[in-house]
Amino acid sequence: MFKHEKHLLQEVKIDAPNPNYAAMLQEQLGGPQGELKAALQYLSQSFRINDHEIKDLFLDIAAEELAHMEMVATTVNMLNGHTPDANRATVGNVQAHVLSGLSPMLTNASGQLWTAAYVNCTGDLAADILSNIAAEQRAKVVYEYLHRQINDKGVRDTIDFLLNREEAHNSLFREAFNRIQDTGSQKDWGVTEDSKLYFNLSTPGKYFDLNNPKPTSFNNPNPQNDRPMN
Amino acid sequence: MFKHEKHLLQEVKIDAPNPNYAAMLQEQLGGPQGELKAALQYLSQSFRINDHEIKDLFLDIAAEELAHMEMVATTVNMLNGHTPDANRATVGNVQAHVLSGLSPMLTNASGQLWTAAYVNCTGDLAADILSNIAAEQRAKVVYEYLHRQINDKGVRDTIDFLLNREEAHNSLFREAFNRIQDTGSQKDWGVTEDSKLYFNLSTPGKYFDLNNPKPTSFNNPNPQNDRPMN
Amino acid sequence: MFKHEKHLLQEVKIDAPNPNYAAMLQEQLGGPQGELKAALQYLSQSFRINDHEIKDLFLDIAAEELAHMEMVATTVNMLNGHTPDANRATVGNVQAHVLSGLSPMLTNASGQLWTAAYVNCTGDLAADILSNIAAEQRAKVVYEYLHRQINDKGVRDTIDFLLNREEAHNSLFREAFNRIQDTGSQKDWGVTEDSKLYFNLSTPGKYFDLNNPKPTSFNNPNPQNDRPMN
Amino acid sequence: MFKHEKHLLQEVKIDAPNPNYAAMLQEQLGGPQGELKAALQYLSQSFRINDHEIKDLFLDIAAEELAHMEMVATTVNMLNGHTPDANRATVGNVQAHVLSGLSPMLTNASGQLWTAAYVNCTGDLAADILSNIAAEQRAKVVYEYLHRQINDKGVRDTIDFLLNREEAHNSLFREAFNRIQDTGSQKDWGVTEDSKLYFNLSTPGKYFDLNNPKPTSFNNPNPQNDRPMN
Amino acid sequence: MFKHEKHLLQEVKIDAPNPNYAAMLQEQLGGPQGELKAALQYLSQSFRINDHEIKDLFLDIAAEELAHMEMVATTVNMLNGHTPDANRATVGNVQAHVLSGLSPMLTNASGQLWTAAYVNCTGDLAADILSNIAAEQRAKVVYEYLHRQINDKGVRDTIDFLLNREEAHNSLFREAFNRIQDTGSQKDWGVTEDSKLYFNLSTPGKYFDLNNPKPTSFNNPNPQNDRPMN
Amino acid sequence: MFKHEKHLLQEVKIDAPNPNYAAMLQEQLGGPQGELKAALQYLSQSFRINDHEIKDLFLDIAAEELAHMEMVATTVNMLNGHTPDANRATVGNVQAHVLSGLSPMLTNASGQLWTAAYVNCTGDLAADILSNIAAEQRAKVVYEYLHRQINDKGVRDTIDFLLNREEAHNSLFREAFNRIQDTGSQKDWGVTEDSKLYFNLSTPGKYFDLNNPKPTSFNNPNPQNDRPMN
Ligand SMILES: [Ca+2]
Ligand SMILES: [Ca+2]
Ligand SMILES: [Ca+2]
Ligand SMILES: [Ca+2]
Ligand SMILES: [Ca+2]
Ligand SMILES: [Ca+2]
Repeated sequence: MFKHEKHLLQEVKIDAPNPNYAAMLQEQLGGPQGELKAALQYLSQSFRINDHEIKDLFLDIAAEELAHMEMVATTVNMLNGHTPDANRATVGNVQAHVLSGLSPMLTNASGQLWTAAYVNCTGDLAADILSNIAAEQRAKVVYEYLHRQINDKGVRDTIDFLLNREEAHNSLFREAFNRIQDTGSQKDWGVTEDSKLYFNLSTPGKYFDLNNPKPTSFNNPNPQNDRPMN
Repeated sequence: MFKHEKHLLQEVKIDAPNPNYAAMLQEQLGGPQGELKAALQYLSQSFRINDHEIKDLFLDIAAEELAHMEMVATTVNMLNGHTPDANRATVGNVQAHVLSGLSPMLTNASGQLWTAAYVNCTGDLAADILSNIAAEQRAKVVYEYLHRQINDKGVRDTIDFLLNREEAHNSLFREAFNRIQDTGSQKDWGVTEDSKLYFNLSTPGKYFDLNNPKPTSFNNPNPQNDRPMN
Repeated sequence: MFKHEKHLLQEVKIDAPNPNYAAMLQEQLGGPQGELKAALQYLSQSFRINDHEIKDLFLDIAAEELAHMEMVATTVNMLNGHTPDANRATVGNVQAHVLSGLSPMLTNASGQLWTAAYVNCTGDLAADILSNIAAEQRAKVVYEYLHRQINDKGVRDTIDFLLNREEAHNSLFREAFNRIQDTGSQKDWGVTEDSKLYFNLSTPGKYFDLNNPKPTSFNNPNPQNDRPMN
Repeated sequence: MFKHEKHLLQEVKIDAPNPNYAAMLQEQLGGPQGELKAALQYLSQSFRINDHEIKDLFLDIAAEELAHMEMVATTVNMLNGHTPDANRATVGNVQAHVLSGLSPMLTNASGQLWTAAYVNCTGDLAADILSNIAAEQRAKVVYEYLHRQINDKGVRDTIDFLLNREEAHNSLFREAFNRIQDTGSQKDWGVTEDSKLYFNLSTPGKYFDLNNPKPTSFNNPNPQNDRPMN
Repeated sequence: MFKHEKHLLQEVKIDAPNPNYAAMLQEQLGGPQGELKAALQYLSQSFRINDHEIKDLFLDIAAEELAHMEMVATTVNMLNGHTPDANRATVGNVQAHVLSGLSPMLTNASGQLWTAAYVNCTGDLAADILSNIAAEQRAKVVYEYLHRQINDKGVRDTIDFLLNREEAHNSLFREAFNRIQDTGSQKDWGVTEDSKLYFNLSTPGKYFDLNNPKPTSFNNPNPQNDRPMN
Repeated sequence: MFKHEKHLLQEVKIDAPNPNYAAMLQEQLGGPQGELKAALQYLSQSFRINDHEIKDLFLDIAAEELAHMEMVATTVNMLNGHTPDANRATVGNVQAHVLSGLSPMLTNASGQLWTAAYVNCTGDLAADILSNIAAEQRAKVVYEYLHRQINDKGVRDTIDFLLNREEAHNSLFREAFNRIQDTGSQKDWGVTEDSKLYFNLSTPGKYFDLNNPKPTSFNNPNPQNDRPMN
């Protein structure tokens, strides 16, 4: 079960309201690389996991992503300010002015409604962890894009924090991968001839070969975690 | 530009029509881990890539995924047979009987329409390749699930081929990652205190530590590819 | 921020796996009247609420809905069992067999992906609370429908609990409404001639009059709450 | 069956074209609180209603909402004017300029396509009427937001009319509720211990109690309607 | 404005309830070739039409499609019967049993929610009429598919009527096209070299030539309509 | 199968970057009348076609539409330039700045994600060809709208080419229709009384009659194609 505490995981501030940037920041509230997606992806995956260590990691991070979602939403809310003026908007999403009364919404920066199509859950731990590593990397990239569009120091500090947390999650997911890397969809990899072929279907150009396909394995970022802690 | 050749990348056969299984196999035609998604994800990503080697790889694989899509759709079409009987369907998607005249459709196994929400494209090579690695792994998992639901030898052979090709693509994407691994979103990783914290928000239990976050790096499946071939 | 505790809000049990009913129960996990919708609706609304009493109520209930979501998902997971056999499915959603490896999904009973279009958030407290009252009533109705489709005692106990909690939430939202009933969109109601007209546009038949429009007000279920407690 | 008459329910005028505001006003044509949603929600609910008085009321209002939809669409069309110039647009939805040739569209103010996910229909009269009361209140709120973004007298008159009609519908739905308030999902309310609990899951703060849950009942706005008219 | 009359455009009957077929018939209520789509497409297109004859035709047919929608929904409602039993369902859409209390829904036969993505409206009369001709032809095809899946005489009579009305609409739209065939997007057709090329991109095989591109023109089904009637 | 060649079907150029127009041009990449829709509609339809001449035509054009999609995407990419500045955007879609790193996306001009709801495939050749004729006409219209919003000579040349190719496809689809015009849904047309009725449901006004409904037939733009070439 979840319990809510009124304080944020980390305090957020803004220098000044900025409804245009509020609309852009919506991307990480209700977009495909946003905090809601991350929280619900890891939570969804957790329901069928048997490995209690991995399950705990997924839930630790899912809970943190909910906390990030709160931080982003609170920042959007502050940036929306108190002066509704849709006509002065210069970016896409005017829903806050005409639909939600300046409340943060579950949409991306263009007003596309959040959809569970963003969530990947396969029931295979290797596939799910790789999905999460990719998701964290994409989230970092979007925060980098958002960072370069704003000078507000308060907002930048929040983005910095969130961006760095994605790195932390990413590293943790890789350690989790190392623990389960010989299981599930990682097994029986590259044993057929078909798995060794390269079809050069776009021409001109061929720059890669494939002689020795092996299942994914990461270099170990935190060797001390190779063995479970408990 | 694309050119079409009438023959399939690899011939497909079925032992007998099986409309229920046709509906299930739709998953890899119009579902989130299916061939259309893969083709359009790699194609979308390719448009802004400057590195001509990586771009060629993405397009080689995108073209192959289109060829896979044809193989899956042709198999669905054969499995749908010639006897429309929606009432005898025992799985979800009856659209083939009442909407498309037994044509394959751009939906998943439950009839959910394909959506570009399945496609991830960030303009950052590291993030995009990690997305592709995860996508290939998930696609393999879905083919494994489909494999265990059918005894038809022709269908199984096709699934085997497609499943093994996902492994090949996955290995190639990892090699591509190794070539660009110090660029873009991989830079300046783990340098802040925030990137080293672990928030133990789900209790009881804590099984991971995070002392030394590093950007993603894979063990090299094909060392001879470390240096570009050309 | 949110913290997760491993135990459920209330323990769930099933008598036996039942994949068909698992698919139906998905309705309250990822459907329009389901627990995810409720949690995210109340959470979304809370971000801009100034009244700290109402805000706390919304967050108390939002957190509980997340806990309900976990209960439903855990039950779905148990009902899915361990034997994937999509061909024996007799209801709509076969995604669990071919996509998610028997994991619960963020879809309704027919496989439609969850969408933020289910969430209403207007920034007006009266409108939002009325939305929540209606949402709770609809959720109760869907649990009643689900209850009559199953004899499994464990599942019925869980549904009973959840159904009764919707009643509790509903009553609480009405009390909240009574506290704010003269504010926002409740003001200046029924003062124009236009607000008193009845257009009898469907014929034959006219059974209602409208002489004296007034803003919504509920009979008070818990008079002791009329005055804030603190 | 429906018959169409060429004249509008009430004439609409504008002072001057205003493509930006046209895009905003789309919200009430193709948005979640808009006229199409209202019309189709009440019409959908009507199909299974046995109570001929309630059924007539739902259809009276559904037909009126279609008439409102025409008024909104006609106003949008006039506001779009005759000079396509997408580059001077300062709000979200440019579809009118590049897709529909300045025709009104079935989208909200940000271009999100209308979806039946906006429509609630449960087959339970109490739940459906509560849904309608909430829908009317939300529609009023959106009209208030739209009103404050425009000075055009013609548009303001139309919004005033539509806003007041939502109040009229709201009052009528409440009277309908009073007639059926002891039926369906209103029965057996608050009889279990579970329905009387308050889980204080968000802390700090607790401002409500729940001792005596009762089914929803409204103060009667039009006592003379308590007894059916016929 | 629209007025509703309680009687249907044509009475509908069923021989016996048939929830499975009810789910299939949903296709023409809430699917891409269904009655709601047709009604809203023609209504949407009508808002900007200046030609009062064409506009009247579009609205005549839009109103009739609403009446068809009522006939389909009423039939679905009767076919759903009074015995909810989702477990005996053998087709996709179980929403009627667990969500809508056996009410007809705005979804297709697999439970996909209706979306305005089905509606085409370009503001160009030639393009819109061609869209409508194609839409009517597709609707006829889906009714043919539905006809062959049912023996119920009452249902077949209703389908026969609706199918034949699509033919009538189709013929009328062609007459409308003949009246406007030299306007809008029909002008300046085939004057460039590019419009005369044939790219033989799929091989082997080439079976068509293109020497003399001309704008669309139909053989005239009703010559007496060539001159407007008024 | 598909093979990719690195050169475009026709070279594209731009005079200068123009991120606003890039967003508008997205309409023909990921919108309902865009190149992706066309390619996937014709490809989807081709899978069940038996007539090898028609099948080849559909695949010739499907492959060309993929080539068009590349031309549009390459142009969008060039127009997006290298200077991300979402705040200076004056049209709807800011996703390129905050989500995709200036990559072209599978969305329309307002950021709505591409959906397979845009694709019509019925398995009936007459209906499918009519759908394609309408689709080509709508695509031409959208290119006309896009043409009048830009002065960039390079972009205009590309639009000119694409617009004229839609005309070519349109003419070819009509020839294909003439070859199959007495088959499938074209048969048994207009033989019932119901198919000859006109319901004058929108008043005042009646300007069409329907005495002699016949199946669709086009005037022949290229008589020499009446007989298949092979
Ligand atoms: Ca190549
Ligand atoms: Ca933990
Ligand atoms: Ca009436
Ligand atoms: Ca509390
Ligand atoms: Ca060819
Ligand atoms: Ca008329």
